[in-house]
Amino acid sequence: MNRIVFTFIAALGFVPALGQHSSAQDDPLPSWEDGAAKKSIIGFVTKVTEKRGARFVPPMERIAVFDNDGTLWAEQPFYFQGFYVLDRVRALAPQHPEWRDKQPFKAAIENDMNTLMASGLQGLIDLVMATHAGMTTEEFGSTVKDWLATARHPKFNKPYTDLAYQPMLELLAYLRTNDFKTYIVSGGGIEFVRTFSEEVYGIPPEQVIGSSIVTKYKVQDGRPVLVRESKLDFFDDNEGKPVGINKFIGRRPLAAFGNSDGDFQMLEWVTSGTGPRFGLIVHHDDAVREFAYDRASIVGKLDRGLTEAPNHGWTVVSMKKDWKRIFPFEPMK
Amino acid sequence: MNRIVFTFIAALGFVPALGQHSSAQDDPLPSWEDGAAKKSIIGFVTKVTEKRGARFVPPMERIAVFDNDGTLWAEQPFYFQGFYVLDRVRALAPQHPEWRDKQPFKAAIENDMNTLMASGLQGLIDLVMATHAGMTTEEFGSTVKDWLATARHPKFNKPYTDLAYQPMLELLAYLRTNDFKTYIVSGGGIEFVRTFSEEVYGIPPEQVIGSSIVTKYKVQDGRPVLVRESKLDFFDDNEGKPVGINKFIGRRPLAAFGNSDGDFQMLEWVTSGTGPRFGLIVHHDDAVREFAYDRASIVGKLDRGLTEAPNHGWTVVSMKKDWKRIFPFEPMK
Repeated sequence: MNRIVFTFIAALGFVPALGQHSSAQDDPLPSWEDGAAKKSIIGFVTKVTEKRGARFVPPMERIAVFDNDGTLWAEQPFYFQGFYVLDRVRALAPQHPEWRDKQPFKAAIENDMNTLMASGLQGLIDLVMATHAGMTTEEFGSTVKDWLATARHPKFNKPYTDLAYQPMLELLAYLRTNDFKTYIVSGGGIEFVRTFSEEVYGIPPEQVIGSSIVTKYKVQDGRPVLVRESKLDFFDDNEGKPVGINKFIGRRPLAAFGNSDGDFQMLEWVTSGTGPRFGLIVHHDDAVREFAYDRASIVGKLDRGLTEAPNHGWTVVSMKKDWKRIFPFEPMK
Repeated sequence: MNRIVFTFIAALGFVPALGQHSSAQDDPLPSWEDGAAKKSIIGFVTKVTEKRGARFVPPMERIAVFDNDGTLWAEQPFYFQGFYVLDRVRALAPQHPEWRDKQPFKAAIENDMNTLMASGLQGLIDLVMATHAGMTTEEFGSTVKDWLATARHPKFNKPYTDLAYQPMLELLAYLRTNDFKTYIVSGGGIEFVRTFSEEVYGIPPEQVIGSSIVTKYKVQDGRPVLVRESKLDFFDDNEGKPVGINKFIGRRPLAAFGNSDGDFQMLEWVTSGTGPRFGLIVHHDDAVREFAYDRASIVGKLDRGLTEAPNHGWTVVSMKKDWKRIFPFEPMK
């Protein structure tokens, strides 16, 4: 076909334009390999959006929920919010001389991870409350933003917000183009995730669900504030995820995306609804480009989900095989 | 001007078309009298939506919050959810012979309002839990829907869902036309309000915030459900309203609409933000077309708000003077 004839036919829309740039425009998921995972996603979206199709779902009901840690951004060697806690303990230590001899604060200051882990759940809660409570919501938000602007990931030496997964960013955009409302449903702190969700994922704060501590309304010197208190309000993980989804959204989403057993009940709840539903698990099996972990991991353990995914019809994504690149800063494979 | 010339000019868009139907199309708030209240609403919306204006607010940040009882629909002689509680107690009474001799159930069954009121807060909580807990979220939702389809208001003899205020329906639509996201922030039950919010107000379930009881995730006979438990989760009134707004929305709305002192802190929180803000109180002063009540009322008491509105710059709407009609079924005044 000569160039002029081709251009003419292309202009009529009969053939896709050539070139890598143009084909990326046509392909909504350019960082996904053409395999079963990508096919299942596009098949599902096509099915529920075809106006005269038997499985058409009106735009108002198109809701997709995403876990954050390990699903939208990395979570190793530890949840990034955990690094925030440790950095804040060290930053606040000069104002708290008593921490020098008090565990688990001493271990946090000295970066003694073994003692820290041995302090158990109560130790972690003590650290979280010392760094997340006793301030207004505005003060907390701006402290997190300052930290995100300067902190660097220990392996990649990049800001944590650079460690969102490129294929998942494309998936979020693809779903929104198809009139899905995209939500985060995180075991992490709701107000922590909200500080970056809009900028990094295009997800506004009102579409972030997460764990929370109690806040209290007070008028201080004539100025109303919300003060964060040292008391758990809601733990948005495991069985908490469907509870949180029902509380915040009030209807069952069409699609759920997770990576660990903390997402099992969310996936189970979403995909057991009537009509077309979609469940997907991101499997971390790329030790070279990211991290490889599943059944035996402490952070982001994926055991039951991996075993039961086939019974539920959930798509399991191999980061190694299904993703051409993992982070936006990487070149395409 | 002869008819043909007029039609030609009108077709070019130079003059508005004549007739009541068309002028209603031009006026976004046709049930509002042309007075200070209407002017303040339109002035605020114009200010924040004018692209090159000094007070322009991007669409993403345009959030408006509305109280429900007494602001979007009526609340006298008692909150409509209270009638649901009483009707449900009576409907369930045959399965609970023990209620015949047990207060406050006996009083509810016998419609003995004095004894019922004397049972105090704990009595009311007992009735709410007996009618709102011990079932799945789906069962609760469908029971409420069945009730709304058949129950009638004691004064107006209309379904409760017919008792939404026409001027407020126009206001919701006007704000949405101007890219506002409209939320309900109700002291009433979140799952109760969600059963009708989309149909009556065009507000989807994920934009309803309200009081809640604890729900628990369970897999029953292989089917995941959320079971409603006899335990308060969150009380979304007074100081709870800004807390609920921050929890669900995560940013401060631009505008708040209420009618009672239960909305005071919501109005205070919203209108004390930086940049353009708007607060409005609906004052029930029309005993003929609706009800007249304020400082001395048990239901929907408005005392502090009425006193302090001028200091905060809040618009106070007189239902009698500012609204041409109150309910959609009424003719225009």
